[in-house]
Amino acid sequence: MIARTPKPPYYAVIFTTIKNSVDADYDTMAVEMEKLAREQDGFLGIESTSGSSGGITVSYWKDLKSIEQWKNNHRHLLAQQKGREKWYNSYKTRVAKVERDYGFERSEKE
Amino acid sequence: MIARTPKPPYYAVIFTTIKNSVDADYDTMAVEMEKLAREQDGFLGIESTSGSSGGITVSYWKDLKSIEQWKNNHRHLLAQQKGREKWYNSYKTRVAKVERDYGFERSEKE
Repeated sequence: MIARTPKPPYYAVIFTTIKNSVDADYDTMAVEMEKLAREQDGFLGIESTSGSSGGITVSYWKDLKSIEQWKNNHRHLLAQQKGREKWYNSYKTRVAKVERDYGFERSEKE
Repeated sequence: MIARTPKPPYYAVIFTTIKNSVDADYDTMAVEMEKLAREQDGFLGIESTSGSSGGITVSYWKDLKSIEQWKNNHRHLLAQQKGREKWYNSYKTRVAKVERDYGFERSEKE
């Protein structure tokens, strides 16, 4: 779940969604998009969770060029179009440069 | 759910968590922390969702100074300590500068 990203700087795309009408096509496409994203140049990791109030997916990328290429991927453009036509009530995408990160992992012995 | 942030640039703190042992104290503290964050100088918004695989909370801030102040808030430091002692199995915090954003909102007529 927690992406194993390299040392900063790198980029994050924060995609926050409120769903509208989700069907079987949505689930199929979501799985396809995550698989396809992982195959793109510059992909570093992805974290995603969703609840009743909405969903947040954060994908991590090497640079702006890799984000732009993914945004314009043929299958991804189709998914974006279907998202606006049907699946989402609203969404927001934010492109951000990760400047620093830190974390915590529980020791096995605790 | 989708934060009404101003025009970029502004900052995002992406907090990704895997829970360990959550109790009533956790829920109380989570509510207190969100309320307290909203009162801080430079706070712009917050989005949060969690599922079985973990949680993602993204808070938005005016600048690095306001993030630093919030990180060092007395009650927040206590919450961070309890998080490491008990609540979280692991977490990662990423501080990122939002360079651009765009969104979609379904028209009322559709």
